[in-house]
Amino acid sequence: IQLSSTDKTVSLCPLNMAAAPEQTPLCIFGTGDLGFSLGRRLLQSGYRVVYGSRRPHSCGPLPPGTQVMSHGAAAQSANLVFICIHRENYGFLETLLPELRGKVLVDVSNNLKKNQYPEANAEYLQRLVPGAHVVKGFNTLSAWALQNGPSDANRQVYLCGNSAEAKQTVAETATKLGFTVLDRGSLSAARELEDFPLQLFPEWRMPLRLAVGLTAFFFFYLLIRDVIYAYVEQQKDISFRIMVSLANKVFPIVSLIMLSLCYLPGVIAALLQLYRGTKYKRFPDWLDRWMLCRKQLGLVALAFASLHVLYTLLIPIRYYVRYKVAASTISQIKENRTSEFDTAIAWRTDSYYSVGILGFGLYLLLGITSLPSVSNALSWREFSFIQSKLGYVTLLFCTLHTYLYGWNKFLRPSTYKWYTPPGYMLSLIVPTVVLVVKLLLLLPCVDRTLTRIRQGWERTDPEDGCEKSLLA
Amino acid sequence: IQLSSTDKTVSLCPLNMAAAPEQTPLCIFGTGDLGFSLGRRLLQSGYRVVYGSRRPHSCGPLPPGTQVMSHGAAAQSANLVFICIHRENYGFLETLLPELRGKVLVDVSNNLKKNQYPEANAEYLQRLVPGAHVVKGFNTLSAWALQNGPSDANRQVYLCGNSAEAKQTVAETATKLGFTVLDRGSLSAARELEDFPLQLFPEWRMPLRLAVGLTAFFFFYLLIRDVIYAYVEQQKDISFRIMVSLANKVFPIVSLIMLSLCYLPGVIAALLQLYRGTKYKRFPDWLDRWMLCRKQLGLVALAFASLHVLYTLLIPIRYYVRYKVAASTISQIKENRTSEFDTAIAWRTDSYYSVGILGFGLYLLLGITSLPSVSNALSWREFSFIQSKLGYVTLLFCTLHTYLYGWNKFLRPSTYKWYTPPGYMLSLIVPTVVLVVKLLLLLPCVDRTLTRIRQGWERTDPEDGCEKSLLA
Amino acid sequence: IQLSSTDKTVSLCPLNMAAAPEQTPLCIFGTGDLGFSLGRRLLQSGYRVVYGSRRPHSCGPLPPGTQVMSHGAAAQSANLVFICIHRENYGFLETLLPELRGKVLVDVSNNLKKNQYPEANAEYLQRLVPGAHVVKGFNTLSAWALQNGPSDANRQVYLCGNSAEAKQTVAETATKLGFTVLDRGSLSAARELEDFPLQLFPEWRMPLRLAVGLTAFFFFYLLIRDVIYAYVEQQKDISFRIMVSLANKVFPIVSLIMLSLCYLPGVIAALLQLYRGTKYKRFPDWLDRWMLCRKQLGLVALAFASLHVLYTLLIPIRYYVRYKVAASTISQIKENRTSEFDTAIAWRTDSYYSVGILGFGLYLLLGITSLPSVSNALSWREFSFIQSKLGYVTLLFCTLHTYLYGWNKFLRPSTYKWYTPPGYMLSLIVPTVVLVVKLLLLLPCVDRTLTRIRQGWERTDPEDGCEKSLLA
Repeated sequence: IQLSSTDKTVSLCPLNMAAAPEQTPLCIFGTGDLGFSLGRRLLQSGYRVVYGSRRPHSCGPLPPGTQVMSHGAAAQSANLVFICIHRENYGFLETLLPELRGKVLVDVSNNLKKNQYPEANAEYLQRLVPGAHVVKGFNTLSAWALQNGPSDANRQVYLCGNSAEAKQTVAETATKLGFTVLDRGSLSAARELEDFPLQLFPEWRMPLRLAVGLTAFFFFYLLIRDVIYAYVEQQKDISFRIMVSLANKVFPIVSLIMLSLCYLPGVIAALLQLYRGTKYKRFPDWLDRWMLCRKQLGLVALAFASLHVLYTLLIPIRYYVRYKVAASTISQIKENRTSEFDTAIAWRTDSYYSVGILGFGLYLLLGITSLPSVSNALSWREFSFIQSKLGYVTLLFCTLHTYLYGWNKFLRPSTYKWYTPPGYMLSLIVPTVVLVVKLLLLLPCVDRTLTRIRQGWERTDPEDGCEKSLLA
Repeated sequence: IQLSSTDKTVSLCPLNMAAAPEQTPLCIFGTGDLGFSLGRRLLQSGYRVVYGSRRPHSCGPLPPGTQVMSHGAAAQSANLVFICIHRENYGFLETLLPELRGKVLVDVSNNLKKNQYPEANAEYLQRLVPGAHVVKGFNTLSAWALQNGPSDANRQVYLCGNSAEAKQTVAETATKLGFTVLDRGSLSAARELEDFPLQLFPEWRMPLRLAVGLTAFFFFYLLIRDVIYAYVEQQKDISFRIMVSLANKVFPIVSLIMLSLCYLPGVIAALLQLYRGTKYKRFPDWLDRWMLCRKQLGLVALAFASLHVLYTLLIPIRYYVRYKVAASTISQIKENRTSEFDTAIAWRTDSYYSVGILGFGLYLLLGITSLPSVSNALSWREFSFIQSKLGYVTLLFCTLHTYLYGWNKFLRPSTYKWYTPPGYMLSLIVPTVVLVVKLLLLLPCVDRTLTRIRQGWERTDPEDGCEKSLLA
Repeated sequence: IQLSSTDKTVSLCPLNMAAAPEQTPLCIFGTGDLGFSLGRRLLQSGYRVVYGSRRPHSCGPLPPGTQVMSHGAAAQSANLVFICIHRENYGFLETLLPELRGKVLVDVSNNLKKNQYPEANAEYLQRLVPGAHVVKGFNTLSAWALQNGPSDANRQVYLCGNSAEAKQTVAETATKLGFTVLDRGSLSAARELEDFPLQLFPEWRMPLRLAVGLTAFFFFYLLIRDVIYAYVEQQKDISFRIMVSLANKVFPIVSLIMLSLCYLPGVIAALLQLYRGTKYKRFPDWLDRWMLCRKQLGLVALAFASLHVLYTLLIPIRYYVRYKVAASTISQIKENRTSEFDTAIAWRTDSYYSVGILGFGLYLLLGITSLPSVSNALSWREFSFIQSKLGYVTLLFCTLHTYLYGWNKFLRPSTYKWYTPPGYMLSLIVPTVVLVVKLLLLLPCVDRTLTRIRQGWERTDPEDGCEKSLLA
């Protein structure tokens, strides 16, 4: 679509390609789903397409407007051949060595699992057909993306290959199909490209493992403190509480800890920069990795917070709660006591609920702005305002919510059954540390130094800071 | 923006277009919203723009930097003319036949409804100005998209026309504006392109109709079983229950059925492939259409599930519920009975709630990953993991939630008023079938055969499977 | 990636750029985050990259495959120099005047706040190095976007500069990196481009201010009517109600008013067009600005509605509510009264809840369709169907919800404490006006006239309407 011989002036004088009515076709080996989709897309972008098939006369449906030939004939008619065949069936290509000599072969294949074969498919193909120029590419796209054209995240095509010319030819075709091309170097990068579509949420692994670990720990901790304690000390079976009451204690605890773990690495990084007096030393690897999965940490925390909200709103429907409320009313009447309305309790519980709801609202806002299409629409300053300033406010609200829940129980000895603190007290440790350190970092004198360091100033060696003070 | 005479080496030696200071302008007939937006966008991309107007001296605001002339003069100065005029006013173009001879006319018009005219606007234009090369295109874009540049889904421009050269010229301009061009063939495709912007959720029609049908059926079914039964047999008027109680029975029933209908076609397709022993036979049309609207089915089901959640959480606020709870407490006191706390009921109801909440959480996750920007960011393997594996787990949780709700009522004769089963029992049929068949498909022996078939293996004719075993 | 000398026929005959193995490199001054990211991205797109540094032998990590030289040597080897240095350090460029003569300098710098310096960074650079061609650009991209390639909203690069050739050269590079280029004219536009990344939600400012204003007004209004009234007239301290009860009155009021303010400008615009009899007169500025922030108004309204839903569902958990319910049950028993179940109240309250939930469901739907990736996937007709038709239905439901809440209190004098109406009555004014006027506009005779006006017909001057009836 992007053409060459014309400049900004729109001319209808013979364009060289439009004037060449019979352009060289592209060839596709393989008439499966991927071959079909690729062919249709190439046709739509104005290319001529020839399929190579072992059974040219009975090879299933093909896009209208394409031709089918034997492999050899198809290869000879084109300069560029897309190999849309499973690696197991590459063998027959050895019989086509003369026809494929000097041609560009695009290996679009993927495997079913990592390390399925000792060498990458594209390297194996190059070994089979040494006279051709093999380029690995297009394999990260689905048949769907190929047929319907590129969309947001599926716009990038990765290429690698040993021949720069061959890569250039494939890159042009990809660009005409509307994709953005990224060159990944020589054919030795093929394995990496082939492993890419087999990834399963690599950046979610650590946050999910952490969530599972924390959930398991607090589940057993609270099981012992609540259910087993009641059974041992009071001979009461309250195991039915596991399903809702216990779950509704574990979820908010894990959520608060994980939310604070989103902000802890930022605080550690600031302390490191202050200590070192420069921003030009690399952070330790674990800190880098931690900072890269903050978004995932936050979203898992949001999922747990949402569960907490649903479990909490469900409370008054529960059989257990209804039974307890009725029993308390009945006992009040029978004993003829009148419990007084306590304004202090009303203030405290209502504040506790209100702060919790507002915290959850901000939490949701953080989650919505981390949707790719929303965060892309924000300027860098807007994104950092939301994710950092609003993020700390959210953490503050959620921590306050937990403190209000505890209220005066922190000092009551009966709270500490078997000398263990309740779960929510444990969950307050990390967020409190993060908030206190953040507050210290916001002190004018500390903040000023930190800002100067982040703009490139260095403590030890201020006179030649010119070169280093590049754009942050 | 994309230029020709330079290669990768950045040169400042005279570029041919930069050196040609007075490039040929593009012409726009019509100064309405679309003409205005198109002109501004062309200007921003570096084109010169000339407007043709019947009243060049009083034609409303135009983008600064453009010229206005009479239609004839404007047409003569350009090779490419965008016709941004309503079809009803095409008539005057007949008076410009000499000026328009050999020019490329881009018909960007749309109609207000389908089949408004016997022939497509672009074909009518070609008949009026036979000496020009008419290209249909840009009509699927809004004035908004034209002015602000292409964004995600609005990136594609569809073109059709009888002259390949003319299409090429328009395609270049579209590409310079940042759009991806899809060639839809000759001018006879114009009607299809003109109908495209008039579409109103075509892929949502079937799921919505199904939802309305199921809702109506279950509404009347439950109305008869609950309200009319109570009125006939017990002379009680409980019609007020229609607004919340009845609604909260209908919504989860419809939601569960529609969720299971998302997964039924996949199961049917697997059975068909197993039966036929090949994946190369096309599925029946109804199955294809069904599979294409699974996403919409699932999202409608999610909407109904969300309503169910809101209606359920609302229960304890209702006047009716509060009255009943108070009445039960009062009657307990008056009759001096004490109802015993039943741990079994607590376990069952809490499990029922907990499974429901977790199922809804997974449901929401499925919904979020089907947002375009999120699903685009997933690799194919990640997307299929979420939509298939997590989808079945969601269906399992929601089905279990409903079974726990029924519990021991399945065998109690009093449940079957007027010999009809309760609504939720009817809603369990499809999901149970889907889950059982899916379980059978996961048996190692069945799963192995199915995997081989999906990799291209064919039962009947295994020895020449090479050609067929293309990439899935 | 986009190349020139080839047309649609894929050729492997010597491409001029591939044949020129040692292409001219691009130069980057500055080895900070932005320089690093830009260099890596240029490399990936196939460019050669040379860094200029004051300390070429100790300048921190650089992308593998690049060279580092002194500033002078680097500048001499390239035609295009990216200046990735803070403005404060531009001074040393004056020493490189001979090396930079005739080169294109791309100023990618940003400032920390608006109007930090009397002249734009790019204009200052041009003054320092008068012999070079300065182009401002790339500054709206983050280092992240540069390194990872363009994504949805970050696809556009704005350029400005005095030399058309220099801009063209930079534009080509940007296009090869996958960005869409918008030309913003001469270097005097540089300040505007430099201010762009410093924007902080400009289009959200008005809606947020309005929300804060309305919230404050209704908070104090209800504080006086509820808390202070009870204290003054009945000597009761009910100040604890501020946290939840009062908040849950303010949120729905503000939400309803803001939702109706989304639809008021559309109604005013229609009335204006009917009155003027033409659509070709510009709307007053305040109306234009108002219409441009409707989406933000609606989303803020949705946030308040969501808070209202959470606060409402929380009601039965509150200590105050539980106390009140128990007290009412106890007093019924002590006084031996039996309150009768009132079907009318059950109908009314259940309808009120049901309409509210359905209204909130539609509200959420509106919110979801305004996510960038969802609204981009809709055709123009679909988007307008949802945002206008469904929007009015949402407003109708929410208004009805409020009327059902008021029910028969509108005529009861005791409602008007201190002669002031309750807050929800005030909130009904704007939505009622909008709905009534909209209903009038839908009357067939009015609707027909309005449709004709919107298609370009003008009342005063019907005979020469041809030119004006352009595409709407």
